[in-house]
Amino acid sequence: MNGAESLIRTAAAAGVEVCFANPGTTEMPLVAALDAADGMRAVLGLFEGVCTGAADGYARMSGKPALTLLHLGPGFANGIANLHNARRARSPVVNLIGDHATWHAAADAPLASDIHSLARPVSGWIRSVQSAKTAARDTAEAIAAAGAFPGQIATLIVPSDCQWDPADAPARPAPLAGLAKVGDAAVKQAAEALGAGPGAGLLLGAAALSERGLSVVARIAAKTQCRLICETFPARVERGAGMPALERLPYFPEQAIEALTPLQTIVLAGARSPVAFFGYPKMPSSLVPEGRKVVALAEHGNDALAALEALAEAIGAPRAVSLPAKATRPGRPSGKLNAATVGAALAAFIPENAIVMDEAATTGLPFFAASSNAPRHSYLALTGGAIGQGLPCATGAAVACPDRRVIAFQADGSGMYTQQAFWTQAREQLNVTTLLCNNHSYRILQVELARAGVTEPGRKAKSLTELSNPDIDWTRLARSMGIPGVRVEEAESLCKELERALATPGPSIIELML
Amino acid sequence: MNGAESLIRTAAAAGVEVCFANPGTTEMPLVAALDAADGMRAVLGLFEGVCTGAADGYARMSGKPALTLLHLGPGFANGIANLHNARRARSPVVNLIGDHATWHAAADAPLASDIHSLARPVSGWIRSVQSAKTAARDTAEAIAAAGAFPGQIATLIVPSDCQWDPADAPARPAPLAGLAKVGDAAVKQAAEALGAGPGAGLLLGAAALSERGLSVVARIAAKTQCRLICETFPARVERGAGMPALERLPYFPEQAIEALTPLQTIVLAGARSPVAFFGYPKMPSSLVPEGRKVVALAEHGNDALAALEALAEAIGAPRAVSLPAKATRPGRPSGKLNAATVGAALAAFIPENAIVMDEAATTGLPFFAASSNAPRHSYLALTGGAIGQGLPCATGAAVACPDRRVIAFQADGSGMYTQQAFWTQAREQLNVTTLLCNNHSYRILQVELARAGVTEPGRKAKSLTELSNPDIDWTRLARSMGIPGVRVEEAESLCKELERALATPGPSIIELML
Repeated sequence: MNGAESLIRTAAAAGVEVCFANPGTTEMPLVAALDAADGMRAVLGLFEGVCTGAADGYARMSGKPALTLLHLGPGFANGIANLHNARRARSPVVNLIGDHATWHAAADAPLASDIHSLARPVSGWIRSVQSAKTAARDTAEAIAAAGAFPGQIATLIVPSDCQWDPADAPARPAPLAGLAKVGDAAVKQAAEALGAGPGAGLLLGAAALSERGLSVVARIAAKTQCRLICETFPARVERGAGMPALERLPYFPEQAIEALTPLQTIVLAGARSPVAFFGYPKMPSSLVPEGRKVVALAEHGNDALAALEALAEAIGAPRAVSLPAKATRPGRPSGKLNAATVGAALAAFIPENAIVMDEAATTGLPFFAASSNAPRHSYLALTGGAIGQGLPCATGAAVACPDRRVIAFQADGSGMYTQQAFWTQAREQLNVTTLLCNNHSYRILQVELARAGVTEPGRKAKSLTELSNPDIDWTRLARSMGIPGVRVEEAESLCKELERALATPGPSIIELML
Repeated sequence: MNGAESLIRTAAAAGVEVCFANPGTTEMPLVAALDAADGMRAVLGLFEGVCTGAADGYARMSGKPALTLLHLGPGFANGIANLHNARRARSPVVNLIGDHATWHAAADAPLASDIHSLARPVSGWIRSVQSAKTAARDTAEAIAAAGAFPGQIATLIVPSDCQWDPADAPARPAPLAGLAKVGDAAVKQAAEALGAGPGAGLLLGAAALSERGLSVVARIAAKTQCRLICETFPARVERGAGMPALERLPYFPEQAIEALTPLQTIVLAGARSPVAFFGYPKMPSSLVPEGRKVVALAEHGNDALAALEALAEAIGAPRAVSLPAKATRPGRPSGKLNAATVGAALAAFIPENAIVMDEAATTGLPFFAASSNAPRHSYLALTGGAIGQGLPCATGAAVACPDRRVIAFQADGSGMYTQQAFWTQAREQLNVTTLLCNNHSYRILQVELARAGVTEPGRKAKSLTELSNPDIDWTRLARSMGIPGVRVEEAESLCKELERALATPGPSIIELML
């Protein structure tokens, strides 16, 4: 057994089932080892951002890490943007990066670069394997590091001689770090804060947005009448019939501050104290209105579930609450395609148990409200703001959940970053339906230009925010990678095509001409 | 005038003419400033790797830096792979990266990350602007740093408040650092080494491969009969009629060592002492055969042109040599498409003064020999091994040289990384003819697997090296972004279509079914 085989067998023994890969010469022994080990699925992405985004989506839906297999510094660099999103989502991911043989490092060969410096900004754990003999143990520790609460990126750099040199046996799984318990004081403070009734708000993120978390949250709200607010870009939230309806913290700072102004106290449960997505002149960084108190029940690194349960106990919340279990959908929209009709159409047809990956940007906003009592579904957002997450993340979610329908609700500008994901969807015949919102622009940037005072942009500013001249033909683009699809111009045909696509196994695209 | 305008006006005054951009919210004042300043062309890329690769191609052909305009850490990260190639090509590039307002940094907003750590591996110079008042001077120094011999990447991080706050005037250009002169001892050593006649070889890179460099090299070879060897992946070499014919150092180490074995001495002129692209078991890092002497006439950082001229003087080379000025082309190939017929077809039809960007990988090899006495052309190679360079680099070369025909000689696997470049070619109506070599595989990896002893790859290893199931339809893909094209199945139709495409203004694609 060589180092590569000991590594892959260790990962398989630790329960890692998928490797999203775009390997090169320095990873050939690992590629060969994938065949030697049973139980590890290899999924090829034709660009590394597809692999890392897929690993994020897989982790969000399965709760466990996938491997990525990437080629030296430049190959890893192509995956950084979606690892940035995964880091913000607190997704466990284990990156394997092949590197030059240890004895070849000094040659500074063309592909050599400082991988540690590239990896540090997105990785909670980094190590270079020093010898084939330690590759197995290093892998076990990388997997344990990735899975440590609340989930992080672990990056293991594997020089090629540490892959091909002889090794001993695979390593046993390493123990995961335990959760940090929330202290009684925090629970007591939160309980007091919730005495304010609708003057208190629970700001929810991470595990508070899971099915178990939200069932406790619903009990707390039934007792206290507190407001339930979902962080703006949740990694994953369970929504629809049977789940409590949540407000969503608005994106623009002035709107977020307005939404929070009626509160006296904001209780954080799995969410950070809210900050503006961007700084604007004369606007604050913090979205907490002046004079309001913030109580951290469970921040990053704490066990939000246990904290919420302790809180429910402390306030004497009811053992259970019954929420409407029957879904209600908006009616079929008609007329022009716009954010409202698109959101209504998706809410009208979303199948039970669907997964919605929302990178629809400006077009996506109305869907959240329209679908709050739709059939049960999981909703995934763009956590880190690094665009190009949607199609890869949807791909990984579909790998994790082959029996569920995944809807990639996708803007055009961000979609262009990583459209190579279509090919992987086609090869793996994943149940992903892409709703591609083609508005021929980076619409958000046009909004931001106007916010910056540029209400009549000049020729160059216009050219940098428009995706026209030429228009992109998304149906053709997806077809070139094996994805069938149609283009729709109004809401009626969108409804018809949605109904058909959602009932058809395998991937497809509906291009919405906005 | 705000900081952004002072910055852009400073760059324009320093002679920077193009900005390859994919901006976001933190760059809006810079976007507006592009309109305020005359003489700065803004070219949108729909993925940052397109922008950075284009800046590299632009620099290789114009000899001067373009700006890139990128969005925070993740946007920059998407451009790293092609900056890695640009660094290895010693191309001057100035990256402008917008960042959160200085007072918003502490909020650790979703898009925040350690940009310095990401930038360091590819940048020779990095700075964060501290105030709008210094933005102009920082820009002048960044441009001077990029242009300092032999060219490097300068990265300027510009917080958004340093863009929108008031500034004074633009700054004057900063002085460039001078070239390091080559000492007399190095020239004398090289002159002695060349006494060995064909037992000596000049290994050429960088400025030694320019028109001026090669005309001196031809004089030296006429006097000494030394072998003229081009580094394996030159940033740019002038080739064809009127230029001396060069051997190319082979890619695989055993072949390179064999090629160098007849030499007693290797004289480096603009090239590094040769090393293996990858380390292989039981193969050395250095490609210099044992016992051979290496003489560094001019390494990285030295003035190879002046050194070659001093060398020509020292050995009493003739003032001029006449090389065949009339081009000779191979005949039109016929029959099956393969590396040999494709290389012959391109050499048979390459127009005078063309620019060939070769990322054709395994299919590209025979072209170099077939075209050695073709009409004069510039040849650009994949310098850093980070695939996805070809289409962006061709795009930038065409922006730099609107009167020349650019041929993107492109493999399919690497082409998929950054095919968004097609859109920019279509929008700017650039004279780029893409020859897309569709062999449905990462063929080089299949070769490398075999070299690693895996002659019968298993199911997973096969699946990770094949681009089939589904096949990619490149003609359709390019058409979706506004590029017309055709698919050819044999050499006769390739010749016909090449002849037609090369005579037609604007971009197009020919998909070669190998």
